[in-house]
Amino acid sequence: MRSANQVLNVGLVGGGFMGRTHSNAYRQAGKFFDMPRQMVLKAVCSRNAGRAQEFADNWGYESIETDWRALVERADIDLIDIASPNDTHAEIAIAAAQAGKMVFCEKPLGRNAAEALAMVCAVEEAAVPNMVWYNYRRVPAVMLLKQLIEEGRFGRIFHYRAQFLQDWTISPDLPQGGGALWRLDGSVAGSGVTGDLLAHNIDAALWLNGAISEVTAMTETFIKERKHNLTDRVEPITIDDASSALARFQNGSLGLFEATRYARGHKALNTLEINGEHASAIWNLEDLHRLKYFDYRDDKRLQGWREIHVSSTEHPYMKHWWVPGLQIGFEHTFIHQVADFVSALEEGKAAQPTFRDALETDRVTDAILRSAVSRTWQTL
Amino acid sequence: MRSANQVLNVGLVGGGFMGRTHSNAYRQAGKFFDMPRQMVLKAVCSRNAGRAQEFADNWGYESIETDWRALVERADIDLIDIASPNDTHAEIAIAAAQAGKMVFCEKPLGRNAAEALAMVCAVEEAAVPNMVWYNYRRVPAVMLLKQLIEEGRFGRIFHYRAQFLQDWTISPDLPQGGGALWRLDGSVAGSGVTGDLLAHNIDAALWLNGAISEVTAMTETFIKERKHNLTDRVEPITIDDASSALARFQNGSLGLFEATRYARGHKALNTLEINGEHASAIWNLEDLHRLKYFDYRDDKRLQGWREIHVSSTEHPYMKHWWVPGLQIGFEHTFIHQVADFVSALEEGKAAQPTFRDALETDRVTDAILRSAVSRTWQTL
Amino acid sequence: MRSANQVLNVGLVGGGFMGRTHSNAYRQAGKFFDMPRQMVLKAVCSRNAGRAQEFADNWGYESIETDWRALVERADIDLIDIASPNDTHAEIAIAAAQAGKMVFCEKPLGRNAAEALAMVCAVEEAAVPNMVWYNYRRVPAVMLLKQLIEEGRFGRIFHYRAQFLQDWTISPDLPQGGGALWRLDGSVAGSGVTGDLLAHNIDAALWLNGAISEVTAMTETFIKERKHNLTDRVEPITIDDASSALARFQNGSLGLFEATRYARGHKALNTLEINGEHASAIWNLEDLHRLKYFDYRDDKRLQGWREIHVSSTEHPYMKHWWVPGLQIGFEHTFIHQVADFVSALEEGKAAQPTFRDALETDRVTDAILRSAVSRTWQTL
Amino acid sequence: MRSANQVLNVGLVGGGFMGRTHSNAYRQAGKFFDMPRQMVLKAVCSRNAGRAQEFADNWGYESIETDWRALVERADIDLIDIASPNDTHAEIAIAAAQAGKMVFCEKPLGRNAAEALAMVCAVEEAAVPNMVWYNYRRVPAVMLLKQLIEEGRFGRIFHYRAQFLQDWTISPDLPQGGGALWRLDGSVAGSGVTGDLLAHNIDAALWLNGAISEVTAMTETFIKERKHNLTDRVEPITIDDASSALARFQNGSLGLFEATRYARGHKALNTLEINGEHASAIWNLEDLHRLKYFDYRDDKRLQGWREIHVSSTEHPYMKHWWVPGLQIGFEHTFIHQVADFVSALEEGKAAQPTFRDALETDRVTDAILRSAVSRTWQTL
Repeated sequence: MRSANQVLNVGLVGGGFMGRTHSNAYRQAGKFFDMPRQMVLKAVCSRNAGRAQEFADNWGYESIETDWRALVERADIDLIDIASPNDTHAEIAIAAAQAGKMVFCEKPLGRNAAEALAMVCAVEEAAVPNMVWYNYRRVPAVMLLKQLIEEGRFGRIFHYRAQFLQDWTISPDLPQGGGALWRLDGSVAGSGVTGDLLAHNIDAALWLNGAISEVTAMTETFIKERKHNLTDRVEPITIDDASSALARFQNGSLGLFEATRYARGHKALNTLEINGEHASAIWNLEDLHRLKYFDYRDDKRLQGWREIHVSSTEHPYMKHWWVPGLQIGFEHTFIHQVADFVSALEEGKAAQPTFRDALETDRVTDAILRSAVSRTWQTL
Repeated sequence: MRSANQVLNVGLVGGGFMGRTHSNAYRQAGKFFDMPRQMVLKAVCSRNAGRAQEFADNWGYESIETDWRALVERADIDLIDIASPNDTHAEIAIAAAQAGKMVFCEKPLGRNAAEALAMVCAVEEAAVPNMVWYNYRRVPAVMLLKQLIEEGRFGRIFHYRAQFLQDWTISPDLPQGGGALWRLDGSVAGSGVTGDLLAHNIDAALWLNGAISEVTAMTETFIKERKHNLTDRVEPITIDDASSALARFQNGSLGLFEATRYARGHKALNTLEINGEHASAIWNLEDLHRLKYFDYRDDKRLQGWREIHVSSTEHPYMKHWWVPGLQIGFEHTFIHQVADFVSALEEGKAAQPTFRDALETDRVTDAILRSAVSRTWQTL
Repeated sequence: MRSANQVLNVGLVGGGFMGRTHSNAYRQAGKFFDMPRQMVLKAVCSRNAGRAQEFADNWGYESIETDWRALVERADIDLIDIASPNDTHAEIAIAAAQAGKMVFCEKPLGRNAAEALAMVCAVEEAAVPNMVWYNYRRVPAVMLLKQLIEEGRFGRIFHYRAQFLQDWTISPDLPQGGGALWRLDGSVAGSGVTGDLLAHNIDAALWLNGAISEVTAMTETFIKERKHNLTDRVEPITIDDASSALARFQNGSLGLFEATRYARGHKALNTLEINGEHASAIWNLEDLHRLKYFDYRDDKRLQGWREIHVSSTEHPYMKHWWVPGLQIGFEHTFIHQVADFVSALEEGKAAQPTFRDALETDRVTDAILRSAVSRTWQTL
Repeated sequence: MRSANQVLNVGLVGGGFMGRTHSNAYRQAGKFFDMPRQMVLKAVCSRNAGRAQEFADNWGYESIETDWRALVERADIDLIDIASPNDTHAEIAIAAAQAGKMVFCEKPLGRNAAEALAMVCAVEEAAVPNMVWYNYRRVPAVMLLKQLIEEGRFGRIFHYRAQFLQDWTISPDLPQGGGALWRLDGSVAGSGVTGDLLAHNIDAALWLNGAISEVTAMTETFIKERKHNLTDRVEPITIDDASSALARFQNGSLGLFEATRYARGHKALNTLEINGEHASAIWNLEDLHRLKYFDYRDDKRLQGWREIHVSSTEHPYMKHWWVPGLQIGFEHTFIHQVADFVSALEEGKAAQPTFRDALETDRVTDAILRSAVSRTWQTL
């Protein structure tokens, strides 16, 4: 029998792209996963009351707030979920932790590692459950890869490489600014592709291949100034449009990382490859169900890259969905994360990645940005 | 402003695999599409009251029934959705139509064209909106292909070919019978892969390439008897395990069709290819976001199969989901079908495929089954 | 130590596309394979003396002939290689055999099985070594597949399917006639795609999957008349532009075959797929180094189509070429065939496919053409 | 009419892997390309007389030498082709140039840029035609890409990335030393993958995307010592097993380069990708006929990566081979290079890449190696 505490009352901050994915995840998780607690969409907070209400109506939030401070103070909220722009993460998360709320935060955790560290201190001091939305860990193919690595199938690792390639900011006519375009405004976003895209690659790398010990990097801003859609003036661009890094991992393997929004032809090409003594694997987000796996222990004549369509009941998460061969999509990674969190919570464990896990990613992305300026290797 | 009739009260028959996909579609459609009427999950009907209640609880149905006749008679139901095994389709659909309900029916429409014809007569006589769940028409890549064909980009068509390959029944230890295994029981299913899988290929073919004028075919039952999990006795298998057909279309093109559950390595490989004078296209369900498109009008040196990742705002349905490059999955085809139905209803139009459209598919699959027995060409 | 008979003096008939590939094969085989006998390019025969001499000069033939009868009678020729159009195969082959020469013949062996049978009788009566240039058996990936099948890795076979898709005759402005265009002239070619393309698929099928017991088929001529470039008149086209067949193999598996020159976007897409109880494989000529292999005995989570890049020293023929990963091409299949023939000859064995093997292919293609006319199943 | 100088007498140094590919190229070029001068295989030089003779017999060299100095002095040799290990390149090339011979040299030109510079000075002072075997420029798909770039189809370039991944030295049991294993001996090879593999990537990059202005790099030697198969002692490994670099091109684009022999699953994965404002392209050696091309000027709904099968008569070099759709392989790149050289020679032009072109590659690889030691950016 379940206790009276069988719900988790969520207060969401932010009603944009990420607010939608989180809301959908809360609604869907309990329909497909056995959830010891059901998520209750208690309130959504957005500065514009009209839009907050519209969002609440669509997704079924019971109430709205226009000031996140009010949300954080509400006694009927168990969990604050931060899906607002990067410059708001730290302040809200710290206040929420201090108010004793569980905290979810969109990635990157802070605009930099200093912000992130303060957030970690806050949630750890308050001892509140916390989690960061590095959702791609929960792609079934990526989770399968994690299992294979943990089973020791790869042996000594020699190489890890990852990319996140997009092409949506190539036009000089695209403005920076408010709405979805805050990602081009350095003061809001903290950094450009390093924090927005490469952070996903780094998070996966740290999780799959362990700590990074040093990096050297370069960044570039191809288009130096753009009209700001709030000020209506042409203003300098202070984010990085592209970011590449060489890295050494503590396990002795070499890393190669790259993110850009200037790779024509790629919309969301988030890739990874790992090469070990006995096996290698390749994955990318635009074909998210495929894990390419090479096993050197196969009969020599029959060695080849296996295109595993990760859609069978034996594969992570997939038995909860449809039947073998049928695909799921982007949004499901968030649903899995919600289900895993609630499951872990029930078992008294932390669901990964925690704020502390995500702080490590911020440390690496900070080192990359520092290296790009100093043109030197940065030790972590 | 919307009228008081702003809802559609659904009564669902069947709580299996398809009942889940439909229920999810009803819940999700209104969150992502502008729906002039919201779907209300009024009642679910399943013979086992316990399971019906469990299903209702999970998906949010307001009530349950254990006899579909009771469901059909309820005044608070606008639409009967038939997601129960094939042998129940005709009886329920006809009763529902006679009771003045709108009717949705899982595919194939009937166990044969005679059943399907009776169903068409019933819904047309009652003049009730009706639709069959040939969901793969609403894969964005398939809908894009439909647009391209209608724009005349292909010119004269020479070839159309399609397959549906699975491998889940190869083991002789798999029983026939109840639950999900009714598909192996000929008296329930009507036919084997011809009605279950090839029907999807035929529906798409008729929709994309027009009427078929004649077919010749062969079928095979590789495993002749299996234990029946209801009788616990080994009983003959009366369905086709594999089915292939040559066809001629009215537009002069040649068709090639094949479905099987004995193609090791393929879980749900539903494919299609069309070859025209000016262009060709290829699609398959296991990479549902990819439309391969070849255009002979391209510069000769640069002609090649374009791998279109159908995930941008310009592509059918995709602007309702996430951002370019991010994938959706199997379940979304049902959501699109619900949204299209409600949209068409508001405009006083029929959403395709109607029962009459689906009758044509049953006529073709019947002709294939007849040809396999008579070993002769069958004219349609 | 080798005998004085260490050479094989070749007399080639025909200096077109196939004459080039054979000549190249004779020149190259001894450079890469240990050949107990070296091929000597003794004479080339072509009706036009000027072109014959030009061909001889380029490829290093010692002499020319303009009448194949003269060639066949020459005492200094050991082997007659027929690379002239289909309507010349039978007459030359029979005369060559009667003159005691070894005979190589381009495919298809005859314009029909009757011609082919006469050719088989001639070479068998004369007991001369003979071989037909179904070169695609010697693609390393295809030979690897043959090995895997013979090792019993596939278990019971359920399906075999193959295609040969081209698009080079779609334009109505393309004439029929002389030169390379004799393939469009029925009186010369015997048939269209059935003998020219599908014969390759049938040869591979019989070799890999055993005898075919019955077929039903359809053919089509999309463009009914074309200018003849010898008569300069528009004349009816008497060949098939497209050909499809359903088949049953003696081992109980089902076959599906298709060839066409009207599949826009495909230049030489010669494919095959075999589905067995335990394993499946896929190959195509446009990526000739790739064998896709699926093994159901792999760990369930790790099952996937292996993309085997058949280019390692463990793979058939490859140790004779470069280093692992480096590709060979179309012409190498002919080189392998020459090397295999000489090797077999030394061991007193027949190199496959012999004329008798190729007769079986002609019997199947004849049955396909008959079925297309009679619209009935044809038993073999 | 052709002059008396219609032949080019070749003296080859080295009878290993590269000696074979060059010899084959000399034999084949004139059969497929219109060559104003035919290559004559005059002499091959190898220290072991027996092996030299065996090589000469196989490939048709008229004579042998066991001392390259004797070869260089021969009056009947027009062209010295250096296919011996890297430590011999400079000495032979300089002597050959001083003897007034044309010089071909395997890549990398020198073991370092200093050696290469001396070689450039020698051939330029002697004004002898010279060429380096960076053969991958002559893959038809790569040459097509070069044409597309020169036509301005890409616009401003943002990114260039390239890899050369192999896995043949992972086993610690593999010795360093003589024969093919000199590539693991630093004193002979000069460097490891940087000179052997990455040099190919750099050569292509400079040719396709222009000069590199600066690099930062890391290298690694995963296996620190191996038995030397000449001394039979375990000795330190002084080459780099893996090498990665970040680069900036003079045109403002960013470069990313990586080569390794420790990427399990890759035999010869030589890749390149270029991202421009209007178009992008991708190629790799293991599917050498495919050029992937994305054009942003295509209709938005139909944008996709075109898989161009570079095998049609419109494509570079291909009209000289077979018919559309049929593949060529690795060895053909050398044949093309020979044909291009002779063609250019006839026109009084230099065939690329010349020694001077290849010196630039050595400068970049030297900078990469220096950067790996100094851990700083190196300006070129």
